[in-house]
Amino acid sequence: MKLPGQEEFEASSACENIPTGEMDSSLVPDPNPGGPSDTDSTEVGVFKDPMLFIQLNELLGWPQALEWRETGRWVLFEEKLEVGAGRWSAPHVPTLALPSLQKLRSLLAEGLVLLDCPAQSFLELVEQVVRVESLSPELRGQLQALLLQRPQHNIRTTGIRPCWGFTDLRKASHDEDTPLKEQHQNALRLKLPPGVEAAAVLAGELGFLAQPLGAFVRLRNPVVLGPLTEVPLPSRFFCLLLGPPTRGRGYHEMGRAVAVLLSDPQFQWSVRRASNLHDLLAALDTFLEEVTVLPPGRWDPTVRIPPPKCLPSQHKRLPSQMREIKGLSRPRGAPAEDRHDHGPHATCPELQRTGRLFGGLVQDVRRKATWYPSDFLDALHPQCLSAVLYIYLATVTNAITFGGLLGDATDGAQGVLESFLGTAVAGAIFCLMAGQPLTILSSTGPVLVFERLLFSFSRDHNMDYLPFRLWIGIWVATFCLVLVATEASVLVRYFTRFTEEGFCALISLIFIYDALCKMLNLTRAYPIQRPGAPAYGCFCQYPGPGENESQWTRTNLKNRDDILIMDLGLVNASLLPPSECTRQGGRPRGPGCHTVPDIAFFSLLLFLTSFLFATALKHVKNSRLFPSMVRKVFSDFSSVLAILLGCGLDAFLGLATPKLLVPREFKPTLPGRDWLVSPFGANPWWLSVAAALPALLLSILIFMDQQITAVILNRAEYRLQKGGGFHLDLFCVAVLMLLTSVLGLPWYVSATVISLAHMDSLRRESRACVPGEAPSFLGIREQRVTGLMVFILTGISIFLAPVLKFIPMPVLYGIFLYMGVAALSSIQFMKRVQLLLMPAKHQPDLLLLRHVSLNRVHIFTAIQLACLGLLWIIKSTPAAIIFPLMSELMYQPKAPEINISVN
Amino acid sequence: MKLPGQEEFEASSACENIPTGEMDSSLVPDPNPGGPSDTDSTEVGVFKDPMLFIQLNELLGWPQALEWRETGRWVLFEEKLEVGAGRWSAPHVPTLALPSLQKLRSLLAEGLVLLDCPAQSFLELVEQVVRVESLSPELRGQLQALLLQRPQHNIRTTGIRPCWGFTDLRKASHDEDTPLKEQHQNALRLKLPPGVEAAAVLAGELGFLAQPLGAFVRLRNPVVLGPLTEVPLPSRFFCLLLGPPTRGRGYHEMGRAVAVLLSDPQFQWSVRRASNLHDLLAALDTFLEEVTVLPPGRWDPTVRIPPPKCLPSQHKRLPSQMREIKGLSRPRGAPAEDRHDHGPHATCPELQRTGRLFGGLVQDVRRKATWYPSDFLDALHPQCLSAVLYIYLATVTNAITFGGLLGDATDGAQGVLESFLGTAVAGAIFCLMAGQPLTILSSTGPVLVFERLLFSFSRDHNMDYLPFRLWIGIWVATFCLVLVATEASVLVRYFTRFTEEGFCALISLIFIYDALCKMLNLTRAYPIQRPGAPAYGCFCQYPGPGENESQWTRTNLKNRDDILIMDLGLVNASLLPPSECTRQGGRPRGPGCHTVPDIAFFSLLLFLTSFLFATALKHVKNSRLFPSMVRKVFSDFSSVLAILLGCGLDAFLGLATPKLLVPREFKPTLPGRDWLVSPFGANPWWLSVAAALPALLLSILIFMDQQITAVILNRAEYRLQKGGGFHLDLFCVAVLMLLTSVLGLPWYVSATVISLAHMDSLRRESRACVPGEAPSFLGIREQRVTGLMVFILTGISIFLAPVLKFIPMPVLYGIFLYMGVAALSSIQFMKRVQLLLMPAKHQPDLLLLRHVSLNRVHIFTAIQLACLGLLWIIKSTPAAIIFPLMSELMYQPKAPEINISVN
Repeated sequence: MKLPGQEEFEASSACENIPTGEMDSSLVPDPNPGGPSDTDSTEVGVFKDPMLFIQLNELLGWPQALEWRETGRWVLFEEKLEVGAGRWSAPHVPTLALPSLQKLRSLLAEGLVLLDCPAQSFLELVEQVVRVESLSPELRGQLQALLLQRPQHNIRTTGIRPCWGFTDLRKASHDEDTPLKEQHQNALRLKLPPGVEAAAVLAGELGFLAQPLGAFVRLRNPVVLGPLTEVPLPSRFFCLLLGPPTRGRGYHEMGRAVAVLLSDPQFQWSVRRASNLHDLLAALDTFLEEVTVLPPGRWDPTVRIPPPKCLPSQHKRLPSQMREIKGLSRPRGAPAEDRHDHGPHATCPELQRTGRLFGGLVQDVRRKATWYPSDFLDALHPQCLSAVLYIYLATVTNAITFGGLLGDATDGAQGVLESFLGTAVAGAIFCLMAGQPLTILSSTGPVLVFERLLFSFSRDHNMDYLPFRLWIGIWVATFCLVLVATEASVLVRYFTRFTEEGFCALISLIFIYDALCKMLNLTRAYPIQRPGAPAYGCFCQYPGPGENESQWTRTNLKNRDDILIMDLGLVNASLLPPSECTRQGGRPRGPGCHTVPDIAFFSLLLFLTSFLFATALKHVKNSRLFPSMVRKVFSDFSSVLAILLGCGLDAFLGLATPKLLVPREFKPTLPGRDWLVSPFGANPWWLSVAAALPALLLSILIFMDQQITAVILNRAEYRLQKGGGFHLDLFCVAVLMLLTSVLGLPWYVSATVISLAHMDSLRRESRACVPGEAPSFLGIREQRVTGLMVFILTGISIFLAPVLKFIPMPVLYGIFLYMGVAALSSIQFMKRVQLLLMPAKHQPDLLLLRHVSLNRVHIFTAIQLACLGLLWIIKSTPAAIIFPLMSELMYQPKAPEINISVN
Repeated sequence: MKLPGQEEFEASSACENIPTGEMDSSLVPDPNPGGPSDTDSTEVGVFKDPMLFIQLNELLGWPQALEWRETGRWVLFEEKLEVGAGRWSAPHVPTLALPSLQKLRSLLAEGLVLLDCPAQSFLELVEQVVRVESLSPELRGQLQALLLQRPQHNIRTTGIRPCWGFTDLRKASHDEDTPLKEQHQNALRLKLPPGVEAAAVLAGELGFLAQPLGAFVRLRNPVVLGPLTEVPLPSRFFCLLLGPPTRGRGYHEMGRAVAVLLSDPQFQWSVRRASNLHDLLAALDTFLEEVTVLPPGRWDPTVRIPPPKCLPSQHKRLPSQMREIKGLSRPRGAPAEDRHDHGPHATCPELQRTGRLFGGLVQDVRRKATWYPSDFLDALHPQCLSAVLYIYLATVTNAITFGGLLGDATDGAQGVLESFLGTAVAGAIFCLMAGQPLTILSSTGPVLVFERLLFSFSRDHNMDYLPFRLWIGIWVATFCLVLVATEASVLVRYFTRFTEEGFCALISLIFIYDALCKMLNLTRAYPIQRPGAPAYGCFCQYPGPGENESQWTRTNLKNRDDILIMDLGLVNASLLPPSECTRQGGRPRGPGCHTVPDIAFFSLLLFLTSFLFATALKHVKNSRLFPSMVRKVFSDFSSVLAILLGCGLDAFLGLATPKLLVPREFKPTLPGRDWLVSPFGANPWWLSVAAALPALLLSILIFMDQQITAVILNRAEYRLQKGGGFHLDLFCVAVLMLLTSVLGLPWYVSATVISLAHMDSLRRESRACVPGEAPSFLGIREQRVTGLMVFILTGISIFLAPVLKFIPMPVLYGIFLYMGVAALSSIQFMKRVQLLLMPAKHQPDLLLLRHVSLNRVHIFTAIQLACLGLLWIIKSTPAAIIFPLMSELMYQPKAPEINISVN
């Protein structure tokens, strides 16, 4: 669960200075989700000019067979034609040599510069360009013919899905100048955003020229220059650099320099507005002032630098006149370190106190109401299907294990069926009403501990548990409503990263610990047979025709060892398997009858397989193998595929591993009770008032648990567009508290780890279209449908026992482990723990390490670790009663069916 | 087994143009192995000047509290002081802004340039520098006091091991100028190579200066300038850049620019030889001409570029006068693509035909004789211990499995003991005599197939096998000697990468297939009990006092199922475990007695654990956690640690997994034969002549197998300094052929996979000492001791049964799998297979893809795959007799000891 915002933490990526304009825009509703908004990672947003596709055509084959060949192209980065391989290189950051820029400058200074050239076709353009004084008429003719010669392109026409729809393509082919069919079929064309313009750079050595010839043309109206560029786009710029043969590849390098200049957003901005040669040269000089210079002794110029994860911010580079236009007179990219110092929600508008009763709630409802329709429309994506399956299985597993635990802790007042029903009802209502519908509810954590203590208290004092519980629920709901009315949730503003991370780490660790505990319990339920252990013997003994019951009595021993050592004497025996033996009236005898071999290790294998497979599949996204669609499917469906693999393995070997067993009958676990809890039962009336005291404690627990989770889920780094609703969430919890108390179902609050897994399975990323552009995290698919579906499916599961019984529990525990590990590794805290083990020399270039001394970082981490340890101990002390119980009891109902006692 | 030379294959690393001078030097004997030769990865070898340590002291605190503070330092790369964190940044490639270089140029042009300044102390130097016309005497005094102020350094004094010994430190402290104690204790000092000089750059803004003040000083004799530099090194250069306060950090950037210039080897070379200001400025201009320029719109100048794996070649940049001196008038760095086209051994001197009888052998012996003493001295390294343990365990496992196989294929003419003895004797002799002592011998592959066919042939024709085999051995030895005499081994020059890789892939795949087969066989030997399968019943039946033998007869059934279904009637029974039962005279009855549960899955777990653990530990070297020493130990001992972990797990659970069992008695497996094979036995005399025919076939097999393996082991990318010895190796094989035939031991040739693993465990890497310098592959620890130890230990193993019996076989199979996978992934072929699955967009920037079209690469790979498939089929056809046999029989001797038949 590598959640976003992590990379921002790493300073060596260039993403620190995300333009704030871009960040602000994320709060504005997006009218067309998944559409062109995906482009805002390019700098189009800063320099509003159309994007340029730049092509370098080089004159080759002098003197025999002159031809123009496309040897380079630029959109964001440079792609070079690998002549031998006949393919485009990987996009890379262009590097130039300083002399080529200087030579270019002097060539342009002496050459022809046409700004706002009115040419309507390539022919007109060429005619204007060759009309240079220095050329003889004969040369002009030769040159014109040469320029009009059709260039060789390297076009790949394999069909790919267009990134931007087809609107602009028709527009582009409207004012065409006979572009070729292969140009129209160019795969690159589908990757370029709408409205993109072209620039053509023609460079080369020409023997019959006596002196260099430079021309730079800006067309007034962009026009498709026939077959000049490989993509039939309207061209805005045209540059010609020709000259007599020189040593080295001077004109090639100058051509590259022009192309790199034009691909620079600021140079392009200036040159689009330049009115004379002076402006052009000034733009070039500005470019030169801002270049980064790498020393030749430390950097090999032939190395191709891969595109950075994010492009550098162009805000600082805005020309002053443009800053005035945009009202950006001071640089707006806030230094990243400032953003890290205070919590991510410090300035969150939803946490401003209104001062009115229920003011926050009203505000939340209003804000969320505007998003309500889109909360359903935004779910139309296959990724949501995977999320539903994944979270559904996690929820059902949770419901079963904790339902079983709760059922035991409350002598059946709660049970697996209540757990299913409660999860389905509460979850679905929450998804429909809540401020943050990505939240998944569960009845784990402090609430579980509280319920267990409450039950033992009421049993010790001979109370009627469910009515007492009903009153507590009523009180808790009341207290929570008071907290909503008084806008107490704004207090979460004061939660720092320290609190958040500590809580998240604790919950994740409990999750991991839990998964491992459950797995270990399996090995206890299905013990391994050591060579010394006497577990082999098993046969079927029954009173034969010549035997009497005394035979039975004689061997009726309590101790297995006795049986083992003992000579049974004469018995009537067979070797029928235990189940068959019992059916025929005999008794299976011997310790070997009770063991189910191979299950422990096979379960461990399944557990490890599903954990490793889910982890590996999640990382397939970053692999280079397979097309991106395939990788996306693998990554999105990683948990579901891992579960399927586990089920397949299990089904293939057909071993009696413990399976997911859901209850088959729809009735309260406690015999004889109605679905509605009676308000008093056998309790005295004053107990309903006294219930306010434990209710106060529970309210505090629920408020803390709910709100810290909400803070974690609404972190700024997840770029949620629809925001959260802290007051509304708490209100929903209060309402559900009431409902579940009345129906005698478990109590629910937000579950951190499963909710994080839910969000992670709904990550939205931009499709990288322009060559070299990295896919960027766009946000989460915020909607109510996945959660709703999960809980509807959970409800239906009560009737899905025949299907679910094929899913082995160890596989689900493996997925739990995966969720816990993913949640744990998503927090900065873990990176800092790693720093403790890392020699200073090898530490990554983290932003915090640039500004905070290592000792201070270590001390901070150590304090956090100590707090975590303390929390763990506190958490474990009352739970110490629960955890072993859980360990012991969870698998009792699923123990091997051939559970026949020795006697 | 990521072997060297792989990175060279990736074009984006800057290592392509390794200076040939450096490569040549690897053929010259290294008088001091492991010593200062480790430095030849720096460019010192090209520009012979001493390395420079450059320090930037910045003037801070104007106007109140002026102080000099060290804010940057350079050796190969830049380290910046992180002021907030109080630590040095990670070393990175320095980046400059163009204007700072230009401003520096004009400041130097107008400033003071003292070349060959005779100052003997810092005071003298300062006095000379402040003697500038433009300054008033008062200002001079102020300035002098300021310059003599002690600067603030950021010194880490934690003790680290010196990289270069202490010789130069004493020398440096000889002519000292009161450097501080902390300077002497500076940890950085120990990382710098001997003879390093310092350069101090002082820059800052000074309010009382009316105009900029620039001074550049080259000292005639380098002198320690007191506490000026953090390391008390003799300073050669001194640069002062002061001026009135300006906007931005102008002087800081200029100071950095000087430092970066001085850290450039070519600028340094020029400036050391400059005789006037003009030379200095010319050097700066040359630098500017060669810089790499990154466009501002595509590269964020604040990004720190990590140091490249290899520094760019400086050969091309040699000043022309220097090229003449060194006789390098044409650039010597051969283009990398040329080196890839022909095989790596095309120009190998050892493969030149001498034209004399045994000329190649004589040459080999002469060449290896010079290395002979060093072959023992070079083994003094802890890494060798790990290699011995690792390869020893692999060899022993091999000896057991193939010994068992051979023993069965030859009805005991060969056996496990012969396999041990033969491996030990042949291996040790080979290690002592061979041209390539890193080779590990084994009796697998074609020789094994041949022996099996030979045995069945001689059995069918009633021959005496061992005498017949002796004659074949004599003939093979003769033929091989003829091949040695005629220098046939020079033919290996014509082996291409295609052949090599195909062979290596085939052998690796067989290795992997083998490991998996062995593992699968275990699950057959210890079947898993499915719920339906009737494997539970087991009890102990014996004739009780009131019973007679008829009871036995009655139940004496052939079929397990019959027993199971059958009612045994009255029996005298107990539940004693099978072994105890037999001891007491009873018979264990029922299918449950024969199964050992849990072993199959536990073996699988051990297998996977040892494989994954060995792989993971090998990769710890590339992790950032733990100090480099710890990582090195983990990486070097990865296989041994994985084996230990497996043994520990096994011992902890104490299950009856199959263990490594070696024979306990020292005698030939075939009963009644002597250790010396009699020359004729029962065979007619003419059979000794007829043996020449099969011997011819075997000679061809052995020649091919031996020489292709030798070619793979002697690849150029392993940078072997002592070279191989193709003729000598073949001669050794011939001698061993004779010896093993006489003693009736298996025949031996070189084993590719284990030899590769042996070499990989002996990789020598440079210690990265100068900050930012990457450790580079230096070669292999070429010596005879590890191999010798391995085979001595193998010999001793015949008596080590009580220790070795704790090692479970599945663990060793896991290590086999690891070896096979490592060998397979070390060849380019696998990279090309991956390319088949990789969309063009995501393909790495491989050198071959820049020059060869993708389709052609794919076709080449496909042909190679087809050939591999064909080879596999051919290999399998005769071996088809062997492989299932192997699968079936290998574990017969190690089957569970409670192997008591049903009746």
